[in-house]
Amino acid sequence: MNPDILRERQNATFDIEKLTNILDGGAERTNRRREIQSLVLNDPDFDYGNPNFLSRSERYDQAVKKSAHMILKLREYGISDPVEINWYKSYVHRFRGNPLEIHLAMFLPTLLNQATPEQMDRFFTPSWDLEIIGTYAQTEMGHGTHLRGLETTATFDPATQEFVMHSPTVTSIKWWPGGLGKTSNHAIVLAQLYTQGKCHGLNAFIVPLRSMGTHMPLPGIVIGDIGPKFGFDAVDNGYLKLEHVRIPRENMLMKYAQVKPDGSYVKPLSSKLTYGTMVFIRSLIVGNAGTMLSQCCTIAIRYSAVRHQSEIRAGEAEPQILDYQTQQHKLFPLLATAYAFLFAGQYMIDTYNRISGDINQGDLSEMPELHALSAGLKAFTTWTANTGIEVCRMSCGGHGYSRSSALPDIYVEFTPSCTYEGENTVMMLQTARFLMKSYRQVQAGQQLSGAVSYLNKVHHRVMAPQAVSSQLDLNLNTLVDLYEIRAAMLVELAAQSIQQESARGKCQEDSWNNSSIDLVRASDAHCHYMVLKMFRDKVDQIEDPGVHSVMSTLAHLYAIHGMGNFTGDFLQAGVLTGAQVPSVSKCLKGLLAEVRPSAVLLVDAFDHHDKMLNSVLGRHDGNVYEAMFEWARRSPLNRTEVHESFHKHLKPLQAKL
Amino acid sequence: MNPDILRERQNATFDIEKLTNILDGGAERTNRRREIQSLVLNDPDFDYGNPNFLSRSERYDQAVKKSAHMILKLREYGISDPVEINWYKSYVHRFRGNPLEIHLAMFLPTLLNQATPEQMDRFFTPSWDLEIIGTYAQTEMGHGTHLRGLETTATFDPATQEFVMHSPTVTSIKWWPGGLGKTSNHAIVLAQLYTQGKCHGLNAFIVPLRSMGTHMPLPGIVIGDIGPKFGFDAVDNGYLKLEHVRIPRENMLMKYAQVKPDGSYVKPLSSKLTYGTMVFIRSLIVGNAGTMLSQCCTIAIRYSAVRHQSEIRAGEAEPQILDYQTQQHKLFPLLATAYAFLFAGQYMIDTYNRISGDINQGDLSEMPELHALSAGLKAFTTWTANTGIEVCRMSCGGHGYSRSSALPDIYVEFTPSCTYEGENTVMMLQTARFLMKSYRQVQAGQQLSGAVSYLNKVHHRVMAPQAVSSQLDLNLNTLVDLYEIRAAMLVELAAQSIQQESARGKCQEDSWNNSSIDLVRASDAHCHYMVLKMFRDKVDQIEDPGVHSVMSTLAHLYAIHGMGNFTGDFLQAGVLTGAQVPSVSKCLKGLLAEVRPSAVLLVDAFDHHDKMLNSVLGRHDGNVYEAMFEWARRSPLNRTEVHESFHKHLKPLQAKL
Repeated sequence: MNPDILRERQNATFDIEKLTNILDGGAERTNRRREIQSLVLNDPDFDYGNPNFLSRSERYDQAVKKSAHMILKLREYGISDPVEINWYKSYVHRFRGNPLEIHLAMFLPTLLNQATPEQMDRFFTPSWDLEIIGTYAQTEMGHGTHLRGLETTATFDPATQEFVMHSPTVTSIKWWPGGLGKTSNHAIVLAQLYTQGKCHGLNAFIVPLRSMGTHMPLPGIVIGDIGPKFGFDAVDNGYLKLEHVRIPRENMLMKYAQVKPDGSYVKPLSSKLTYGTMVFIRSLIVGNAGTMLSQCCTIAIRYSAVRHQSEIRAGEAEPQILDYQTQQHKLFPLLATAYAFLFAGQYMIDTYNRISGDINQGDLSEMPELHALSAGLKAFTTWTANTGIEVCRMSCGGHGYSRSSALPDIYVEFTPSCTYEGENTVMMLQTARFLMKSYRQVQAGQQLSGAVSYLNKVHHRVMAPQAVSSQLDLNLNTLVDLYEIRAAMLVELAAQSIQQESARGKCQEDSWNNSSIDLVRASDAHCHYMVLKMFRDKVDQIEDPGVHSVMSTLAHLYAIHGMGNFTGDFLQAGVLTGAQVPSVSKCLKGLLAEVRPSAVLLVDAFDHHDKMLNSVLGRHDGNVYEAMFEWARRSPLNRTEVHESFHKHLKPLQAKL
Repeated sequence: MNPDILRERQNATFDIEKLTNILDGGAERTNRRREIQSLVLNDPDFDYGNPNFLSRSERYDQAVKKSAHMILKLREYGISDPVEINWYKSYVHRFRGNPLEIHLAMFLPTLLNQATPEQMDRFFTPSWDLEIIGTYAQTEMGHGTHLRGLETTATFDPATQEFVMHSPTVTSIKWWPGGLGKTSNHAIVLAQLYTQGKCHGLNAFIVPLRSMGTHMPLPGIVIGDIGPKFGFDAVDNGYLKLEHVRIPRENMLMKYAQVKPDGSYVKPLSSKLTYGTMVFIRSLIVGNAGTMLSQCCTIAIRYSAVRHQSEIRAGEAEPQILDYQTQQHKLFPLLATAYAFLFAGQYMIDTYNRISGDINQGDLSEMPELHALSAGLKAFTTWTANTGIEVCRMSCGGHGYSRSSALPDIYVEFTPSCTYEGENTVMMLQTARFLMKSYRQVQAGQQLSGAVSYLNKVHHRVMAPQAVSSQLDLNLNTLVDLYEIRAAMLVELAAQSIQQESARGKCQEDSWNNSSIDLVRASDAHCHYMVLKMFRDKVDQIEDPGVHSVMSTLAHLYAIHGMGNFTGDFLQAGVLTGAQVPSVSKCLKGLLAEVRPSAVLLVDAFDHHDKMLNSVLGRHDGNVYEAMFEWARRSPLNRTEVHESFHKHLKPLQAKL
């Protein structure tokens, strides 16, 4: 082991394993997770070398191979718990997308939720056996998050008892579904249902795409891969143009909505049935933002512990770059953020599970709040992690730019989560809608409960005056209060902007649009407050003194760093004075110095295995340079000493000059 | 043409061509630039289809081919003006890196500057004819920006009159030089010179790498490509391990420093001789940040004009997404920033040229200021553009993630400029060093001139009190003054931090390190002020009323947006009160609305040709969806209807289940 990183691991002030257990939700779960990981790591069929040395087609091929092998193994081992399946899958694909993801995570569950018993027989069993491989074709070239705008049509023809599926425009071509391009032979297609001359809105239809035997596209099906992307090389995101394709009436998913043989339409009882799935997926994304950021912090902080550069004091040896305040300022707040987001993800899933139980008993009261929170947190965490991943990459200097660092790969794989499952700005505005509604309720004299209960105080103006003080108190609990005040102020300012626009004679929609910058800011501040509060509450639950202490420091750093970034809001809210700002900065520097001795230990606690990180910079043993040289020598352009371009282009050029 | 984008181009309030001329530096230059562009576009040998459909090896091969053809053509046309060569090269390679870049831009100029007449004969002529293809091998695996830490050794052996070139450690392996991996047969190697038992620091040596005939690596030369990176696929960034390689004494570049046959070392007269080149290259990077951002704004704004989504008012047609305030808030400040950086780039080059003239006449007085400014502005503009490119990409929703948008390519090609030619944080600290020195001079009673003259006022406390006013004045000239006050305050705070650390007994170096967060902030604020001032000064020079008006609005937007981002600083400086902050936000919204009708015209004025943008979203005619579908259908995975993985993996899986 590299002596620098060895030294970092001596004299730990806390028990790393205990912290890992907290992240996993208990020692038992840590053990079980590692067992699952070993199953993958010790399986020679999953060791396929470095994907960065493969072509796009080879990467896709490898991912299909891994997915196929994974399905066999999961059944062989009898792993059926969703969490364990998810671990297994993440380890097989190293947290990257795969071509069968949508089949397993969307196609099968949608059948389970929306298929009739007859359809279950006809479709579920063959889908379970991968005879049918399905995808979920919702997004079109012209419409994503705004579902009502989708243009694909399903027109019922009572004469033949069929639906005619059609893409009437270029923009109506299905675009982006994972696994659609090459892998799937069926799709659940979302289309506007027309029957008896009337449109009944979006419904789901099972459409065969490719022949079961030959895998060739069926007549009327124009299908393919949408071409190279920023990342997601292993996934065949596809397009689908339907040219008057006929499917039997019984291929409409009819557990809820129905079209009768005579063409009459039966509405579903509730349109909120898929609401829960959406909340669940967004909650997973929150945790995933934490996971991806934790991987990048692991890589950047370990590398910063072994990289020496320049000098702080003349004549002395070059310091570890982790000793530079600017480097600490880049990485430690992100380290704190990674923990914050992992805890926020835990909170969201726990709350989802709790509320789901209530819902099954008919109590939907907490759902709107959770829905609003999941939308906003999805946006808040993915945006922050997205930026943070790049900060980590650039903190590794030039070597972060090499694919051997794994950082470019993590970024391109993560960044679409700012767009998919709800475009982030739209998500923030959804949360804002809930905040504005809550604010109006307070104005109307109602007493709010739950996450937005702080708005009760706004109306009664009891917040700011208390907090202004000549003696600045920057302890964690006070900071949570200050974030609450900040959020309340920004909610109020957004509401005032809408009111002012209305007063100027603007219609409701224009007033909303003309206030949307303020609305996004309000949501952002609300989410920031919520994440900090969850972090503080989590820390309060930690019993082990060593772990509690270091996590308190991190939560404090998370709060102070945010305050430094949004000083203007706190000054504007009157809870801070210009003269006090340097104290915030001093507090921040103190916390960076406090985190420094534990930084490597804190990333070790994330428990990312070297083979999962697959990064020459993030190696546990710190031997980065040898690994980098080894990696480069094996890269494809070095298979020959002389590249063909020399003979094709350079030699002829020399001859001509 | 798409009707939406057609409508955007009607009723222009200004003459686009005149604005393009301002960007080019005159109508004549616009015409000449377009002439050069036509030479490339009409040359069938340069039309090689879409690089995203090629493998890494094919991309490299294509780039070598284009570079070779380019050299022939430049000589055939007799293009010799450096600016025109640069245009030609940018158009050939669509603003991307190429394998012969370092040969042309570093190897040949270094010979010109540092070779003796004898060396010119021996090396320059064959290099000009591409018999010798060279690279510049400076960066090592273990050291980048900190040059003194380089480890490669050149030990003089008087017995044989040779230098022994050697890589003593893994970290000393040369790493990153462009064209080193496969293309070059020579390198200028920077190495620590040892002679007569003493180290004389870095010197430059010409080292043959590959046999001139066969292109095979020479004995003792371990050489190759460093492997896949985030981008720069077309460039063979390479590694070089030297194993006791002997070169003749005459291969040391000896125009300045020399090693005599007896091994005695003759120092160069000045070590600042390469200073100017560094300033020049950083100045080019400033302009390039503007160019790359202008490309992304062109793509995102044109796409936002043809993309319709969701609804503002119920029942009405879906609006262009450019009508959403949140979309305007993402894109218009970046549009303003692109102009700001293009003008800053012009300013830097003009100043460099002016000062270079002075230097040739022995006047070096302005050089430190330009050096400091070029370092800071390089960091300031590349960081801002780097983030901005990604904002543009994500503002295009999912389609921005497709390589067909060109945005991923622009990002990966641009982002290393935050690291190369001086890592950005180090650059900011260099500028800070100049600012601290200037601040100390003011404290010592000196009167400063030039860019930092505003620091004179700090000391006399004449700034802030004047500016505080109950009636907030947000016109452009006042804003420039407020940015000046902000910069002065942050410079002062950084200086105070250093002083406080010293007072606490810290040595000078630790005081500096413990204040480096403040120092970076101070540099950032200084650069922000300088860029705004250059923008305002440029606008003041514009005579045409229409162009002047729209550019004033953009400069104003640039200033107000920055104020919104750094409200805390302005509040802290006491030039703004909490109650006034909503006025800043209102002013910002007003400016966004003012820019809206001219947005498409303002990106048209950048004059990026469709073939250069190579983006389906950024097309001048707005027909994005048809182009996207066409692009996808041509992508490699669609060459066969059924991918081989179906037969290899999926069919066998189905059989087993």
